[in-house]
Amino acid sequence: MDALKPHAENRCFGGTVGFYKHTSQECGGEMRFAVYLPPQAQAGKVPVLYYLSGLTCTEDTFLIKGGAQQLAAELGLMLVVPDTSPRQTGIPKEDADWEVGTAAGFYLDATQAPWASRFRMYSYVTRELPELVGKHFPARMDREGIFGHSMGGHGALVCALRQPGRYRSVSAFAPISAPMRCPWGQKAFGTYLGADTEAWRAWDATELLRGGARVPPLLVDQGTNDKFLAEQLKPELLRAACEQAGQPLTLRSQDGYDHGYYFVSTFMADHLRHHAAALNA
Amino acid sequence: MDALKPHAENRCFGGTVGFYKHTSQECGGEMRFAVYLPPQAQAGKVPVLYYLSGLTCTEDTFLIKGGAQQLAAELGLMLVVPDTSPRQTGIPKEDADWEVGTAAGFYLDATQAPWASRFRMYSYVTRELPELVGKHFPARMDREGIFGHSMGGHGALVCALRQPGRYRSVSAFAPISAPMRCPWGQKAFGTYLGADTEAWRAWDATELLRGGARVPPLLVDQGTNDKFLAEQLKPELLRAACEQAGQPLTLRSQDGYDHGYYFVSTFMADHLRHHAAALNA
Repeated sequence: MDALKPHAENRCFGGTVGFYKHTSQECGGEMRFAVYLPPQAQAGKVPVLYYLSGLTCTEDTFLIKGGAQQLAAELGLMLVVPDTSPRQTGIPKEDADWEVGTAAGFYLDATQAPWASRFRMYSYVTRELPELVGKHFPARMDREGIFGHSMGGHGALVCALRQPGRYRSVSAFAPISAPMRCPWGQKAFGTYLGADTEAWRAWDATELLRGGARVPPLLVDQGTNDKFLAEQLKPELLRAACEQAGQPLTLRSQDGYDHGYYFVSTFMADHLRHHAAALNA
Repeated sequence: MDALKPHAENRCFGGTVGFYKHTSQECGGEMRFAVYLPPQAQAGKVPVLYYLSGLTCTEDTFLIKGGAQQLAAELGLMLVVPDTSPRQTGIPKEDADWEVGTAAGFYLDATQAPWASRFRMYSYVTRELPELVGKHFPARMDREGIFGHSMGGHGALVCALRQPGRYRSVSAFAPISAPMRCPWGQKAFGTYLGADTEAWRAWDATELLRGGARVPPLLVDQGTNDKFLAEQLKPELLRAACEQAGQPLTLRSQDGYDHGYYFVSTFMADHLRHHAAALNA
C-alpha cells in the first residue's frame, strides 16, 4: 500500500486513530477524514464501517464522542469518518448558516451554482473516499457497512438505498427520515438541488424506498427527548415507508434520550454488533 | 434531598449526566461541576468517584471524552467532575497563560495575592463539593474514591495523601509526579504559593510521600509517546518516592500512547474496576 501520512495520529485501544487530509477530485479541493484502525489491521485486511456525522460536526467528532473504538477493536472493524462537507471553498456565505454550506453537505451531489462544483459529498463518500481507503489501508473492500447520526444517519440510508447490494449493513442514530418533508431538508435541497422538487426524490430515503430500493435490515435508534424529533426527524415517516415497502426495520424508541452523543454513545455497542454480524459473517 | 437543578442534563447509559453551577464559598464565586448518576442511584445511595481534569479542561471534558459512563453504569459508581478552576474572577490576566490561572487551578489553596481569595481548589474539591454532593445527590459519602489526569492526576494524589484514610481508592492517568521539580509545577506553585519553596512541599505528591503520608495502593498509567513525559510528568520520581516510602504502586508504561483522551479512554475500564473493587467491597 502507498503511504498516506496522517497529520495527527493517536494510539487508542491497541489500534490507531489517524487524521488525514487530501486533495479531492469530487469536491475540488482539500477534504479531511479520520480512520480508526483496529489491532487486527496490523495482521491483515479488516471490514470497513463508514460513519457519517451530523450538522456542525467534523471528522473527529465521532472518534472523540462516540465511544466506538473499544468495541471496534474487539470486533476488528475499521472505522472511516469523513468530514461533513468541504470547507473554505470560497463560496460566498459558506459559513453563514449552520443548516446549509460548511458542515452541512447532506451527503448529496449538488447541482446548483455555486455549490455544484464543490459540494459532491455523495460521490466523495461512496466512490472517492472508498477508493482511497482501499488503496492506502488494509481494508476488505468487499465488506463495507455504513451508519451515521442525524443528517449523517439519513446520508447512510441514502448511500445504501442508491446502491442496493453494496453495503452489507446499515444503521442510523436519530436520522432525518424524510428531508423533503422537514425544514432542514427543504432548505438544503432547495439550496443544493434547486426549486424543482422532482429532483429531490433521488436524495430522500423515504422516496427511494417508495421507488423500490431495498437495503439489509435496518437498525434505527431514536431518543424520545430529542428536541428535533417532531419537526425535523419524523421517524414515523421512515417506519411507514419501510412498512409499505416491506423493508425490514428495527426502530427503537429510547425513553428520555436526546439528540446528542450521550445518546449516540449509549447505543453504539448495539450498532457495532449489528454491523459486525453482517461484516464478519 | 434538596433540589439542585442542573442547567443541562442528558440521559446516558441508563443514568444521567447533569451539569451544575453554584456559588462557592471557598472560591468566592460561581463554580461548575458535572455529575454522572448511574442507574443504581434511582434505587439508593451509591459510592462517589471524583475525577480531576487536566490543564485547559472544563467539567464536561471527561464526560465527553473519557468513555467512563458505560462501565460506571455497570459498576454503580457516581462520577463527580469539578471544573479545573474558578473562571471570570476579575483577576488581571487570569486567562493570559494556559499553565496558570483559568483552567489551571492545580487543586491547591493559593496563598498569594491576587489568587488567594479565589483559587482554593483543594478546599473546594475535598470539602465544599463533597458536602454539596452529600446533600443533593444519593451519595454514599463513606465510600469516596478519587482519580484524575495530568494536573488532575497529581491533584488526586495530593488530595488523598493530605487526608490519609479518607479515600478508599486512588489512581491517575499520566500525572504530574513532582510539581516542585517540573516547569508546570514551578510556575504554578511560584504564582499561587509564593517564592518560599518550603511552602510548596505540602502540595507535592512526592514530598508528601517523603513526609510519611500513605494512601491505598495506587494505579498509574503513563503513555510512552506522551510529549510531556520527560519534562513535566517524570513518573520515575513518583516510582522512587513510592519505593522509598513503601507505598504500593502499580505504574504501567503503555507503549505508544500519548497524553490525550485516546490514551485515557483506553485504560479507563481498568481504573474504574480498580476503584470499584475498593468502593463496592
